[in-house]
Amino acid sequence: MESKELRSLLQNLQRGEATVDQVVERLRHLPYEDIGCANIDHHRSLRQGFPEVVFGESKSVAQICQIVAALMAKGGNVLVTRLSSDKAREVGEVFPSARYHEDARALTIEQNPVEVTGKGTILVISAGTSDIPVAAEAVVTARLLGNEVEQLFDVGVAGIHRLLGRKDLILSASVLIVVAGMEGALPSVVGGMVNRPVIAVPTSVGYGASFGGIAALLGMLNSCASGVTVVNIDNGFGAAYAASLMNRKE
Amino acid sequence: MESKELRSLLQNLQRGEATVDQVVERLRHLPYEDIGCANIDHHRSLRQGFPEVVFGESKSVAQICQIVAALMAKGGNVLVTRLSSDKAREVGEVFPSARYHEDARALTIEQNPVEVTGKGTILVISAGTSDIPVAAEAVVTARLLGNEVEQLFDVGVAGIHRLLGRKDLILSASVLIVVAGMEGALPSVVGGMVNRPVIAVPTSVGYGASFGGIAALLGMLNSCASGVTVVNIDNGFGAAYAASLMNRKE
Amino acid sequence: MESKELRSLLQNLQRGEATVDQVVERLRHLPYEDIGCANIDHHRSLRQGFPEVVFGESKSVAQICQIVAALMAKGGNVLVTRLSSDKAREVGEVFPSARYHEDARALTIEQNPVEVTGKGTILVISAGTSDIPVAAEAVVTARLLGNEVEQLFDVGVAGIHRLLGRKDLILSASVLIVVAGMEGALPSVVGGMVNRPVIAVPTSVGYGASFGGIAALLGMLNSCASGVTVVNIDNGFGAAYAASLMNRKE
Amino acid sequence: MESKELRSLLQNLQRGEATVDQVVERLRHLPYEDIGCANIDHHRSLRQGFPEVVFGESKSVAQICQIVAALMAKGGNVLVTRLSSDKAREVGEVFPSARYHEDARALTIEQNPVEVTGKGTILVISAGTSDIPVAAEAVVTARLLGNEVEQLFDVGVAGIHRLLGRKDLILSASVLIVVAGMEGALPSVVGGMVNRPVIAVPTSVGYGASFGGIAALLGMLNSCASGVTVVNIDNGFGAAYAASLMNRKE
Amino acid sequence: MESKELRSLLQNLQRGEATVDQVVERLRHLPYEDIGCANIDHHRSLRQGFPEVVFGESKSVAQICQIVAALMAKGGNVLVTRLSSDKAREVGEVFPSARYHEDARALTIEQNPVEVTGKGTILVISAGTSDIPVAAEAVVTARLLGNEVEQLFDVGVAGIHRLLGRKDLILSASVLIVVAGMEGALPSVVGGMVNRPVIAVPTSVGYGASFGGIAALLGMLNSCASGVTVVNIDNGFGAAYAASLMNRKE
Amino acid sequence: MESKELRSLLQNLQRGEATVDQVVERLRHLPYEDIGCANIDHHRSLRQGFPEVVFGESKSVAQICQIVAALMAKGGNVLVTRLSSDKAREVGEVFPSARYHEDARALTIEQNPVEVTGKGTILVISAGTSDIPVAAEAVVTARLLGNEVEQLFDVGVAGIHRLLGRKDLILSASVLIVVAGMEGALPSVVGGMVNRPVIAVPTSVGYGASFGGIAALLGMLNSCASGVTVVNIDNGFGAAYAASLMNRKE
Amino acid sequence: MESKELRSLLQNLQRGEATVDQVVERLRHLPYEDIGCANIDHHRSLRQGFPEVVFGESKSVAQICQIVAALMAKGGNVLVTRLSSDKAREVGEVFPSARYHEDARALTIEQNPVEVTGKGTILVISAGTSDIPVAAEAVVTARLLGNEVEQLFDVGVAGIHRLLGRKDLILSASVLIVVAGMEGALPSVVGGMVNRPVIAVPTSVGYGASFGGIAALLGMLNSCASGVTVVNIDNGFGAAYAASLMNRKE
Amino acid sequence: MESKELRSLLQNLQRGEATVDQVVERLRHLPYEDIGCANIDHHRSLRQGFPEVVFGESKSVAQICQIVAALMAKGGNVLVTRLSSDKAREVGEVFPSARYHEDARALTIEQNPVEVTGKGTILVISAGTSDIPVAAEAVVTARLLGNEVEQLFDVGVAGIHRLLGRKDLILSASVLIVVAGMEGALPSVVGGMVNRPVIAVPTSVGYGASFGGIAALLGMLNSCASGVTVVNIDNGFGAAYAASLMNRKE
Repeated sequence: MESKELRSLLQNLQRGEATVDQVVERLRHLPYEDIGCANIDHHRSLRQGFPEVVFGESKSVAQICQIVAALMAKGGNVLVTRLSSDKAREVGEVFPSARYHEDARALTIEQNPVEVTGKGTILVISAGTSDIPVAAEAVVTARLLGNEVEQLFDVGVAGIHRLLGRKDLILSASVLIVVAGMEGALPSVVGGMVNRPVIAVPTSVGYGASFGGIAALLGMLNSCASGVTVVNIDNGFGAAYAASLMNRKE
Repeated sequence: MESKELRSLLQNLQRGEATVDQVVERLRHLPYEDIGCANIDHHRSLRQGFPEVVFGESKSVAQICQIVAALMAKGGNVLVTRLSSDKAREVGEVFPSARYHEDARALTIEQNPVEVTGKGTILVISAGTSDIPVAAEAVVTARLLGNEVEQLFDVGVAGIHRLLGRKDLILSASVLIVVAGMEGALPSVVGGMVNRPVIAVPTSVGYGASFGGIAALLGMLNSCASGVTVVNIDNGFGAAYAASLMNRKE
Repeated sequence: MESKELRSLLQNLQRGEATVDQVVERLRHLPYEDIGCANIDHHRSLRQGFPEVVFGESKSVAQICQIVAALMAKGGNVLVTRLSSDKAREVGEVFPSARYHEDARALTIEQNPVEVTGKGTILVISAGTSDIPVAAEAVVTARLLGNEVEQLFDVGVAGIHRLLGRKDLILSASVLIVVAGMEGALPSVVGGMVNRPVIAVPTSVGYGASFGGIAALLGMLNSCASGVTVVNIDNGFGAAYAASLMNRKE
Repeated sequence: MESKELRSLLQNLQRGEATVDQVVERLRHLPYEDIGCANIDHHRSLRQGFPEVVFGESKSVAQICQIVAALMAKGGNVLVTRLSSDKAREVGEVFPSARYHEDARALTIEQNPVEVTGKGTILVISAGTSDIPVAAEAVVTARLLGNEVEQLFDVGVAGIHRLLGRKDLILSASVLIVVAGMEGALPSVVGGMVNRPVIAVPTSVGYGASFGGIAALLGMLNSCASGVTVVNIDNGFGAAYAASLMNRKE
Repeated sequence: MESKELRSLLQNLQRGEATVDQVVERLRHLPYEDIGCANIDHHRSLRQGFPEVVFGESKSVAQICQIVAALMAKGGNVLVTRLSSDKAREVGEVFPSARYHEDARALTIEQNPVEVTGKGTILVISAGTSDIPVAAEAVVTARLLGNEVEQLFDVGVAGIHRLLGRKDLILSASVLIVVAGMEGALPSVVGGMVNRPVIAVPTSVGYGASFGGIAALLGMLNSCASGVTVVNIDNGFGAAYAASLMNRKE
Repeated sequence: MESKELRSLLQNLQRGEATVDQVVERLRHLPYEDIGCANIDHHRSLRQGFPEVVFGESKSVAQICQIVAALMAKGGNVLVTRLSSDKAREVGEVFPSARYHEDARALTIEQNPVEVTGKGTILVISAGTSDIPVAAEAVVTARLLGNEVEQLFDVGVAGIHRLLGRKDLILSASVLIVVAGMEGALPSVVGGMVNRPVIAVPTSVGYGASFGGIAALLGMLNSCASGVTVVNIDNGFGAAYAASLMNRKE
Repeated sequence: MESKELRSLLQNLQRGEATVDQVVERLRHLPYEDIGCANIDHHRSLRQGFPEVVFGESKSVAQICQIVAALMAKGGNVLVTRLSSDKAREVGEVFPSARYHEDARALTIEQNPVEVTGKGTILVISAGTSDIPVAAEAVVTARLLGNEVEQLFDVGVAGIHRLLGRKDLILSASVLIVVAGMEGALPSVVGGMVNRPVIAVPTSVGYGASFGGIAALLGMLNSCASGVTVVNIDNGFGAAYAASLMNRKE
Repeated sequence: MESKELRSLLQNLQRGEATVDQVVERLRHLPYEDIGCANIDHHRSLRQGFPEVVFGESKSVAQICQIVAALMAKGGNVLVTRLSSDKAREVGEVFPSARYHEDARALTIEQNPVEVTGKGTILVISAGTSDIPVAAEAVVTARLLGNEVEQLFDVGVAGIHRLLGRKDLILSASVLIVVAGMEGALPSVVGGMVNRPVIAVPTSVGYGASFGGIAALLGMLNSCASGVTVVNIDNGFGAAYAASLMNRKE
C-alpha cells in the first residue's frame, strides 16, 4: 500500500544513511498517496461486497463493456444504471451472466452471491406507475448493496386509504425510500407515520408546472414531517446508496 | 341607464326627423356605455347582498375611511381585507359598527344581516397554525358572502390521522377550501377523499426553499387529485369568492 | 365490502368466543381497509356513470389496450387522454366501438349512453387556434362526464369585440373553462363579465418568454377578476373534471 | 467643438510645418473626442428643451441639491424621479421654484415654459389604483418632454366596459402608454383596439405569484396584440421618454 | 355591417310599430356586433395595404395553403412567417407568385405592389450572424408593411468600431430595430447614439447561461439608454410591426 | 385509547343487543380515531424522551410561554428554535430552568436529564463562521434528542488541509451533518471521505448569486459523493432530527 | 491603414486647396474607420500567431469550408470548435492538413508551427469523465494559442486524495482552468491550494437539479476561494482564451 | 513545522527503537498536518505582504476589533470590507492608524508601507455612479495588494464616446476590472478593445427586471468578447484579488 520509496526512505534512516531532517524534508515533497496516508480512502475496505457502479446513460456499448470487464476482473459484483434495453441486449451478449432489470433500466452481474448485511428492511414506496423506473432502480441497487428490500408501489396521496391499508409493512421498515413526482407529497405523509429515516426521491414525472421534477423537489424539501431528507431528481441509485449506509449494522 | 342621447336619437327616428341610416351611423359612434349595453355589467345586479371589498394593505387609514364611507352610503355590507390591527383600531373609531377579525386581518361592517344564500356548507381546512390568517380570511369572506362555513384547522398531512378522524365533516361539505404552506400537499389528500370542488390556497408560510409560497403553489398545481383548482399565494379572499360562486343555488 | 375477517371477529364476540378486549386488540392490528372504513372511498359510488380515465401519453399501445380491456370489463365508459393519432388507430382496431377525437387527442368508448346529469351548461372558451387541443380535451371530457357543453373558440383579448359579441352565450353558462396561452389574459376578461365559476387553463402555446406556459400561468394566478381558479398548464382534462364537480346537481 | 489641438495640427500642415504622414500619425493618437467626432453625440443638440433627469432614489438630499443646482446653471428644466415626499420637502426649501408631484413621486423645476413639440397626444392608461404612481411618473415626464398628455386611470380588464366606454379617447391618441400590474393584460386589449404604438409598463403591484412584476412583464412580452413593446418594471419614466421619441414631429 | 335585425328594429320604430322604450330594451339584448359598434374594429380600415399575416410554424402545408387562398381572395398581400424551406417549397408550388425569403424563413405574396407609406427609414441592426434569421424577418415584414428599410448586420459590441463606422446610416434612420442574442448589449449602445425610437429584439442565440434568450431579454429591459423598448425573444415580426406604427405618416 | 363508544358498541354485540350487521354499520361511521386505530400514531410512544419542539420565529413571547407551559405539564423536555435573544430573555424570566443557547438561537428546558440513546456520535461540521447558527441549532437539537455530539467548525473547502487534518474525528462519527453556505461544496468532500450517512444543510449565507442559499442547495443535491442527502435551507433542526433517527439503536 | 480619402483630404489642405475649416468639417463626416482611428483595433496586431476561430455548431459543412478557406488564405492557423465528427470528416476531406480532436470536438489547421509564447504552463483540471469534452476543448485551444498545457482529468472532490496527490503539478502551473459539472466544487478546492489565477468552467453535465449547468455555475460564482473567476457554461474555448491572456509574457 | 511526534517517531526508527513497519503504520494514523505536508499551504508564504482580510458586514464592532487586533499582532496590513461608516467610526477610535474609505465602505490599516509588486497597472472601470462602491472596493483592495491602480468611472455604454475618448488609458492597462449593473454590457465593449484579461463584476444596481444583479451577471457570462471572466455580484474585493494574481511578476 505504501510506496517503495517511502519504505526505502525509512530504511535509509534506519541504516543511518539519512538524518531525521533529511527524511522530514523528503516526506514533505513526496506525492500525497506515496506517503501512504491511504486511510483517507480507508473506508473503501469497509465497502467490501459493495458492487462497483457504472453510470450507463452517456456511454457507448463499447465503453460500458470495457469498464465492466475491468470491474469484473477485480472479482466483485457490478451494477450498470441508466441503461436502455437496446444497449443492455448488446452488453448481455458479451457478459452472459449479466441480468437486465427492465423496469429499473439497470444491469447487474453477480459474481458472488449477495450477502445480506443490512440490519433491517429497506422499503421502497412509490406514488404513481410512472415513478416505477426510479423506484425500481432503488430496489435493484439496495438489494445488490446487501439489503432486504420490500416494495410498495402505486400508493399516491390522492388515495390515502391504499397507503394506510399497508401501515404494518410501513412501520416494520428500517429505512424508507419514498419516490414521487407531481406534487411530491407522499414523503410527508409517510414521514408522519414512521419514526425511521425517510429518503425522498423526486421524479421528473408530470407535465406543465411540474418543471421536470422541481415541483416535487421543492415539496419534499419543505416537508412538514421531520426526519425526511432529499436526494436529486430521479436519483433512485443515490437514495438506495444512502439508505444502505443508514441500514448498516454497526 | 341609457343615455339621453340614445333616447333622443330614437325619438328623432320616431318623429321622422332622422332616417334609419342616420341612426345606424350615429349608433356606431356613440360611446359604448351610452348605448346602454349595460348587461355586460348585468351580473352586478345578481350580486345583490354581496359586500363591497377594499384591499387595505397599501392604503392609508384616511383613504380606507373615505372609501368605506362611500360604500356604506350605498347601503351594502363592507369588507376590508389585509388590514393591520393598528389601522383597524383607527378605522373602528370612525365606524363604530365595524368589527375587526384579528386572526383574519379583516374588518367587516354589516349594515344588513347576512342572509345565507349558499346551497351547502363551505369547509375551510388549513394545515398549520401559521396558515390560519389566510384560512381565517377565507372564513370571514365566505360568511359575509352568504354561506354557511365550517373550519377545520391544523390538520397537516404529517399527522394524517387527524384529517381522517374528521372525514364526516369533510364529506358533508359542498365546497372545500384547503389552505397550506410548505409542501402544499393537503389539497391532494383532501381531493382524494371527496367528490366536491376543492380550491387550493398556497400560503407564503415556510422558509428556505419554500420561496415565499412557490413550493406550495407548484405542489397544488401538480396535484394528483382531480377536481383541485388553485388560486394565488395567500389569496384567502379569492378562494372564498370563487367558492361562493360554486356554492350558489341555481 | 367489509372483510370476512371483521365479520368473523364480531361473530366470535357475539358467540362469546372472544372478549371485548380481544376484539379491540384485533381491530387495532387489522389492515386499514379490512376494518371496513371504506367510506373514505365511499364517494366513488357517487361517481357512478363517470368514465374511467387513462393517461395515454407515456404508455405503449399494448399497455393501453390491456388497461382499456380491464376497464371495459367493469361495464363503464372509458376515456383515454393524450393519445396520438398513430396510437389511436391501433387501439381503435382492437376496440371497434372506440371513437377518436383528433383535435382533442382523446379516445372515448361509450358502453352506456352518457346521461346528462349536470345542472347547467359548461362553456369552454379558447383564445387562439393553437389552444384548441387543450380546449377540445376539456370539451370531450366534460361531455363524457355528463354535462351539456358549449364551445367558443378563437376569441382572444386582442380582438375584444369578438368576445363581447357572444355575451349571451357567455352569460348563460353555469361554469366556464377558459383556455389561453401567451399572456393568458382571457380569463380575467371573462371573469369580469360573469358571476359564475371560471376555471383558467394556461397552455404551453407561445414562444420566447412564454416559457412553455409559465407566462400564461402567472397571468391567470394574478387575475384581477375574482372567482377565477387555475389548473396546471395544458390540463384540459383536469379543468373539465373540476367543472363537472361544480356543475353537479345537489 | 473640435479641440484646439486638432485645429493647430491642421494649421501646421497648412503652413508646411508638418507632413501628411505626421498629421495622420498624430490623428491616430489623439484622444477620441479631441478629433472632433462629436457628431456621435450630435443628437444631444436635437434634444434641446428636453429636461435633465436625476434618479433620486438612492441619492441623499445633499447630493440631489448639488446636482440640481449644477443642472439649473445650464438654464434648462430639471426632473427628479423616485423622490420621496420627505426628501422633496427638503429639496423644495432649497429651490423654491420646484414643484413636487406627490402621486408621481417626481419633482420638476421649469426654468423655461415647456413648449409642446409632440405631434399628437400621449395617452397614459393604467389598470388599478395601485399602478397610479408609475402612470403618474409617465404623465409628468411626458409633459415635461413637450407633449400633450391625457390620462385614463383605473380601467382594468376585469371591467372591460369601462375601457370600451372611452374608446374615442383611446382612438384619438398618437402614442399610448399602458401601465398594469398583476396579470398585465391591459396592453393586449388596448393594442387590439388601436393601430398606434403601445408601450406597456409592468408594475410591481400584486402579491404572491406576481413576483414583483414578473407576471405582468411576461404577460406583456407575450401579448397577442401586435404593435406592443415593453419597458422595465415600474419604468414610467422610460416609457414616457420612448413615447416622446415616437411622438416627435419630423 | 349592421345586422338586419337592427335595421328592422329601427324601421319598426320609424313606422310606429315599436316604442322608444321597446327599442331601447331590445338594443340592450342584441348581440354586441349586431348593434354595429364596429368602430372598435374601425382601425382595421386604417390598416389598408397592410398584409395579412400567417404564423406558419405549427401549421401543416395544407392548413397554410387553405388560409393563404382565403386571404388572397380578399385581394391583399400575404405574409407567412416561421416557415421552413421544405414547407415553403410545397406552398410555392400551389401559389406560383409566392416568394420565399430563405434567410427570414418568410414567404410573401404581393398581389399589389407595396406602396411606401412610412415617413422615414427603418434600420434593422443585428449583432451576430446567428441573429440574421430574426433580423431578416424584421426586414421582410417592415418592407411589406410599406417602409423603406435599411439593414446593418454583424456589428456586435465587441467590435465597437464597426458600429461607429456606420454612424451616418444609424443617425439617418427614423426608427431602429436592434436584434441581438448573447448579452443583448447592442441596443444600449445604439440607443445612446440616436434620439429615435429603438426597438430591441432579444434572440435565442447563445448557449449555457444565455438560457434561450433570457440573458439578452433582461439585458435589454435593463438598458441604461432611454428610449429603448423591447419585444419578445425572436419576435422579428412584432418588432417590425411596432416599428411600422411608429413610422406612420400622421 | 379506544373510545368508550367502541367498547360500548362491542358490549352491545356481546350482550346480544346488537347484530353483527349493525355493528359493522356503526363502525363504518365512527370517527377514525375512535375506532382506536391509534397505532398509526403508535410511533410516538417510541419517541419517549424526545423533546417537544416549538418553532419560535413567528410567535410572540406570550404565545411561546403558553405553549411551553402546556408542554412542560406533560413532563417532557422542551426545545424552542429560532428564538431571538430578546424574546429568550423574557421567556427565561417565566421559566427559570430554561437555558438559552445564543449561538444556536435555541432555548431548552430539561425537566429530565437527557439520556444518551444514540448508538454512535453525530458529528456536525460547518464551513464558515457565518454558518455557525445553523450548525449550532443542529448540535443543540441532536444533544437534546439523546445523542453524543461532536462539532468541527470553520473547515471550508478552500483550506482543505484543515479538514483533512481532522480525519480521525470525521471517520469516527456514526452520522455526519455538514452545514455550508456559498457554493455548498463541503458535503461532497466529506461524503467522499466516509462511508456513513451524510446529511447536507445548505445555509442562506452568502451574497449576490448565492440567492439566499439556492446555490448551496443545488450544489448539495448534485453532490458527486454517494450517500449524501439534503434538507431545506437553514434547517439545522431538521438535519439533527433525521440524524437522530439514523443514529437510533435498533 | 488610413483611407485614401483622409490622405487626399490632408494633401488638399497641404496644397492650399482646402481650408482648415473645410477639413475639420469633412473629418467630422467621414466614416469612423476611414479616419484611421484603427488603434482601437490595434491589439489585433498583437494577436499575431493567434489562430482564427470558427464556431462550428450551427454552421453547415459548406459554410465551414468556405470560412476556413478564407481564413487559410490569410496564412494563419485555424481553429473550428463545436464540430461533430460527422462534419469533421467532410471538412477533413476538403482540407487534408486539418486535424480533428475527437474528445474536444475541435478541428485545427496549423499552417505555421505553433510557437510557445506563454510565460508558464496552463493546467486544465476536470472533475469527471463527462467533463472531458469541455476540458479537452480548453486544452486544444490553449495549445494553439501558444501555451504549454498540462492536463489533470478525473480528480473530483469526492475523492479528494486523488487531487492532493498531484499537488506538485498543481502548484507548478501559471494559470489553472478547472472544469466541473454537478455541484461545481472543484474550483474552490483548487483555488484554496494555489495562488495563481483559477478560471472555473461549469459544464452542463449532470441531471435533475443540475439544470444544465446552473448548479455548477452558481457554485463557482459563490466560491469561498479568492482568485477564482468564472466563464459561461461549457465554454472551454473562452476559458483557454482568457487563460492565454493571463499567461502572456509582457 | 512538522510535529514533535513525527520527529520523535523518526528518531525512534533511527535509534532502532522502532521498525520500518511500525513507523509506516504510525504514519498512516497521524493527523494530516502533523506529517508536515504543509506545502499544501505553502503558497501562503508567497503571499507575503498581502493584507489579511475581514468581511465586516455581519460582524459586530466588538468582533471586528478583536479580529483586527489579532491580525495586527502578526505585523501585516489589514483590510476590512463591507463596513458601514457608523461601525468604521467606532473601529477607528480603537485603531487610530486605521483609514476609512467611505466610497468603498472599506477600512485599511497599513502597518507597513505597501510595496508595489504588480508588473503593470490594474484599471478599474465602472459604468454608472451607483456602481462606484463596488468599483472603489476593487480599487482599495488592489492597491493594498501591491498594485498600481487607475480608475475610470461613469463611462457607460449608452455614451460610448466617453469610453472611446479614454482608449489610451484603457490600452495601457495590464489587467482590467469592469464594474457594471443594469444590462452589464460594458465588459463586452471593453473586452473588444483590449487583449488583456478583463474581469467583469456585475452589481446589484438597477430595479425591476434587473433582479438584484442577475441581468448584469447573465450579460457578462454571455459576453461576445473573448477573454472576459466573471465574479459574483458586487464582489469588488474578489475581482481585485484575482486581478492581483494575474498582475503578479513571475
